[in-house]
This record gives sequence, C-alpha cells and structure tokens, in this order.
Amino acid sequence: MKAATVGHARELPHAEYKIDALLVTAQSNVRYLTGYTGSNGMVLWTADSMTLFTDPRYTIQAAQESSCAVKIARGPLHLAVAQSIQRRRLKRIGFEKARLTYETYDALKQALPLGSSLRPIAGYIEKLRMIKSPDEIARIRTSVNTNSQAFASALSHIRLGVSESEVAAEIEYQMRKLGAQKTAFETIVAAGERTALPHAQPTDRTLRNNELLLIDMGACQSGYTSDMTRMLFVGKPDRNTKSMYQAVLNAQLAAIAEVRPGTTAMRVDRAARRALKPAGLDKAFVHSTGHGLGLEIHEAPRLGKKDETRLEAGMVITIEPGAYVEGSGGIRIEDTVLVTENGCEVLTPTSKELILL
Amino acid sequence: MKAATVGHARELPHAEYKIDALLVTAQSNVRYLTGYTGSNGMVLWTADSMTLFTDPRYTIQAAQESSCAVKIARGPLHLAVAQSIQRRRLKRIGFEKARLTYETYDALKQALPLGSSLRPIAGYIEKLRMIKSPDEIARIRTSVNTNSQAFASALSHIRLGVSESEVAAEIEYQMRKLGAQKTAFETIVAAGERTALPHAQPTDRTLRNNELLLIDMGACQSGYTSDMTRMLFVGKPDRNTKSMYQAVLNAQLAAIAEVRPGTTAMRVDRAARRALKPAGLDKAFVHSTGHGLGLEIHEAPRLGKKDETRLEAGMVITIEPGAYVEGSGGIRIEDTVLVTENGCEVLTPTSKELILL
Repeated sequence: MKAATVGHARELPHAEYKIDALLVTAQSNVRYLTGYTGSNGMVLWTADSMTLFTDPRYTIQAAQESSCAVKIARGPLHLAVAQSIQRRRLKRIGFEKARLTYETYDALKQALPLGSSLRPIAGYIEKLRMIKSPDEIARIRTSVNTNSQAFASALSHIRLGVSESEVAAEIEYQMRKLGAQKTAFETIVAAGERTALPHAQPTDRTLRNNELLLIDMGACQSGYTSDMTRMLFVGKPDRNTKSMYQAVLNAQLAAIAEVRPGTTAMRVDRAARRALKPAGLDKAFVHSTGHGLGLEIHEAPRLGKKDETRLEAGMVITIEPGAYVEGSGGIRIEDTVLVTENGCEVLTPTSKELILL
Repeated sequence: MKAATVGHARELPHAEYKIDALLVTAQSNVRYLTGYTGSNGMVLWTADSMTLFTDPRYTIQAAQESSCAVKIARGPLHLAVAQSIQRRRLKRIGFEKARLTYETYDALKQALPLGSSLRPIAGYIEKLRMIKSPDEIARIRTSVNTNSQAFASALSHIRLGVSESEVAAEIEYQMRKLGAQKTAFETIVAAGERTALPHAQPTDRTLRNNELLLIDMGACQSGYTSDMTRMLFVGKPDRNTKSMYQAVLNAQLAAIAEVRPGTTAMRVDRAARRALKPAGLDKAFVHSTGHGLGLEIHEAPRLGKKDETRLEAGMVITIEPGAYVEGSGGIRIEDTVLVTENGCEVLTPTSKELILL
C-alpha cells in the first residue's frame, strides 16, 4: 500500500501548531502517511519533506513499501531522529503525546540539540484519519464482507457441545481463507451466562441447550478492520430473552437512524440509551455505543455520552449497543456503518435476526 | 489465572526506589501481579496493598480473575488513581516510564494532589518476570508443544502452489484446535526471495519449485507465548543453500552451547556471530540472537551485542540467528530455550533438519 493510493488529501500541521516538524510515532499513523507496515518506525514530517526511520530488519521492506525517504538507523530510532533534527536545524518539534512513551519522550528530549524543544500534539493524524478516502472505504468494505462471509461459513460448525474456543478457531480460519491477514481483535465467543461479560475471551466452555451465544468478530484485510456482533440461541428462547433481544435491536436501529452528517457522536449514543429505557435496560448498557475504525479497530470518534464530534460523510463507525445482566446473560448487536452525504449505509450485510440453532 | 499460582516470590520495590507506591500500567505487568486479563487496567501497589483499577465493562471479569482489591472507575482510570493517592496521602509515586504514554503521564501529573510527585521507574516488574516460576515454565512448555504440533499438522498442507497466506491460515487453525488462545505474534510465512525479509507478512505469493520457505510462528496458551522458526525447501537444494543453512545451524548450536547461568546475553549473541564468520555471513545477520519471552513475546533480556544481563536459571529465551541476502533469500532457525541450573534445555521438540518437500 503506497500512501498516495490510500490517504486522503492532507493539510500540514505545521502552521496550525507553530512547529517546524511533527514526529510521528504511532505505527498506524506511520503507515497512513508512508505506506510502511513494519513494526518499528518513526516519521519526521517537515513542511517540505517526510523521512521514515527504521532498523536494518526492515531495509528491504521499507524501500518497497514507503513513498518517502528512508533512513536505516543502527541504534535506537530516537537518536537518529535527534541527529536529523540537529543537522536540519529544526527548532520546534511536535510529537504525538498519546503515542509516545514517557521513556522515549524523555530520551529524545535529552538527545535534542540546544535550542530545539518538544511540543505535545494531540491526535492530529487521528483526526485526518476519521474521514476515509474512497480507497480506504473500499478496503473496509472488503474487510466487512470477509467478516460476514466467515461468520456464515462458521455457522454450520456451531452446534450443541461445541466449545467457545472451537467456534473462535473456525471463525478465524474462515477469515484467513477469505483473504484476511489476521483478526482485527481477539474474537469474542461467549456462551450462556458468560454473555454478561462484554469482553469475554473464548474458553473450553461448551454450548448447552436453551442458552445464548454471543459472537463479536472482526477481520483485518489489506490493513483495514471490520467489526460485527451477532447473537445465537440454542433451542427456543423464553419470553425474557426475546424481549431483551428486541430492546437491544430497537436501540441499535434507533442509533443507526440518528447517523448522518451534522449530528454528533453523543446524540447517536443518546438515541441508543433512550431506546433501552422503556425495557429498563439503560443501566445495563455499560459501554459506549460505538467507535470509529479503519487501520485500527478503535479510532476516533468514540460514540460515548460526552463526545461532541460532528459526524461527517466518509466516517466509518460501529453501532453496538448492548445490555448485560450478571448471572443471567447479555445481548449485543453490532454493525459497521459508513456515514454518507444523506445519512448512512450499514456496510454489514448479515441479518440481525436472533439466530436459532 | 490467579497471580498467587503464577507469579514468583516478589520483593516490593518501595524501599529500593524510595517510593510510597508503584503505579503499574503495562497490561502484562497488571496480569502478572493480579491475574486480571482485561484490556484496560492499572494497579496501584503500596507496601501493604494492591488495588486494580478498571472500567465497568470488566466489573465481573475483574472480580473473578484478580487476587486483589478492585476499584471500578466511571471515568479515566488515572483520575480514579489520583483520587486514591490523595485519599491515602501517598507522596512519591513510581510509574512505569516505558509503559505509560506522555499524555497519561502528563494528565496524571496534573491530577495529583499538592505534595505528591511522580518518579520514573524502568523495568522493575519486567526484571522480576525474567525468572519464570515453575507454573510459568509449565505454561510455556505447553505453548511450545502446541506450536510444534501445529507445525507438524500444517506440514501436510504445504505443497507446490499453496500460498503463504494459506500456510499461515492452516498453522493458526491448528494452534487454536490444540488449545492456543491466539498466536503470540503475526505468523511469518515467506517463500523464495521473500525469505530475505526478516519480518515478512504472508501474501498471496505461491510456493514454487526449487525455493526456500521460512516459517516463524508462535502460540499463546494460558497467557504464555512460544516462538519457533523452521525452513523448508521445495525440491533439491543447491550447494549454496545447503552451506548457508549449515552456517546458520552452526550459529544456532554455538549460541545454545553458550547458554548457562552466569554467562551474559551478549556472550550468547557473540557466539552466534562468530560462528557465521567463516561463511562470510556475519554481516548478513541483521538482528539480535534472541529475546526473553513469557506473557509477552518480547521480554527481557535481549540477546544483543550490548546486553550485559547475566543469564539465570528459570529464564526462557529464544535463540534465532539468521542470515539474509537481498534478492536471493534468507535463513533463520529458532528455538525456545529454558536456562537450567546446569546449562539449558531446548524446549522446542521439532527437528532442525532442513525440511525437503
């Protein structure tokens, strides 16, 4: 992936923040700017140049992938960066404060030449990344479709007596066969009372009669993620389960109905919470309604109670309200959704009916 | 996993560093100390108490898993931590400088009560974690065996025309079926000239006649990792490939022969480099000889040119020299190795012969 084919038109941050260079240390931001996909890299971005610093393990890969100048450092990257700052007499260096450890910040500060200083910058590239380019949307669409197809293929393996881990293994195998490089996050498969854990890791617990199964899964394909949650039930669901399912589905549909350019993240969240109230489940909804996704599974905006981000066309977000009752169980329904000029498009093609086994 | 069943006897860092509390923010360190496996958590560790801070998504899970007091925070964890510091009048707060972002460091600093201050601490728990308890060694052994069995099972699927991605899919599926929760890292499968990329991501590139295949794979089981690299060849290897393979194997055996309590990490590294010299491949060895592993795939010590860490019984490390020639190819051979009282035990049971297909 060359950045030119993926990234959106980008404004340089230098004027806005009064800096001579931005040091980019988040690997996802490095990839977004340069196309480089390795695990170790920093980018020094000035008004008229971009340089990728990496180590000798990535000499060939960096040259193949990246669209900018490459510097192979023999020691710690921050020392090579500091040398470059000195050589080019750069004074005010912005850094990604949420994406740099205190240790590297401090070591870089010590290594800087006299007269150069560090300026914390918050989420500049993350903000650019919120609005996806057509190429990025195409990649997310592919990832979403792989995810849904993997779910459909795995369904035939889900039956009484199968363990959560076996279901997760099958799902991930199907994703891979459909072209995913990996999962976007650790697949969640939770049976029975374990559905009350919003982030359950799959165990040897086997699927029994008359209980719920929650599956939260995502693929990562061509670098881009997808995210979906669906619920299954073994047998005939009782009235309580049915009405809880309907309440969460109503909340999910209400939130989706609120997604359009100009609304805010918190308004979408509020729509979901309000719809859960009549069923008395608003207190059982213990997380936010969703999050942006793209190169990373959790990106801005966060669709939480207090996020005032205005939605814009080109954003891709999840809508995933849930309700969790300790000792009994939980329900979550989640789609990946694209904000369009006129409203939104639910990218996830999988049916939202409660699946009966 | 309750910490009591896993962790080693632990000395409190408070006297050594003159601190009243250590704030633990690395998730692997949080797990090591408390048993909690969720994705969001901080531990405040004083001389006489340990408190885990997490969010409402993990209320049930934290209570089930953790062996210490749990505080569920409604907002950002660092604010709840700061309140606790104030309430308990703690003054000198150590923090994990390599495991805290500048942003959280700065936000925590602002939130601290007057008279409290932050002290950067480097790798204290990481140092404890270098020496594995018998329970941890048992978990690593299981992970290593799963990894080798998955490799053996996947072998029958590797043939002319299969793609790197398909091989990776098969390997990961087999790991999962054998009880792994996930891979320890992104499986590396590289064919032909791509073996020259030490960290190649699997692609659609298919396996052709008369070429090398490099597989670097690791499982994560019961929280603990394993790591192995093996080489395959389709057809009859030429003389050059054979002698390069033999040189890397000699280097790997020479490094293993150096592993014992009392030697240093750099001496093991030097043994590998020295063995590559007669073949003229020492310059083609562009990474370090190995690394510790455990809850994380990369732990201390690093077996590099400058690491003076003394090896001790109970450490688990990888030994993985390699040689890479751009345009032609690369070879790496890697085992997971336990340092014992008298020397070492190679945990990886898989043969180190070049596998001919």
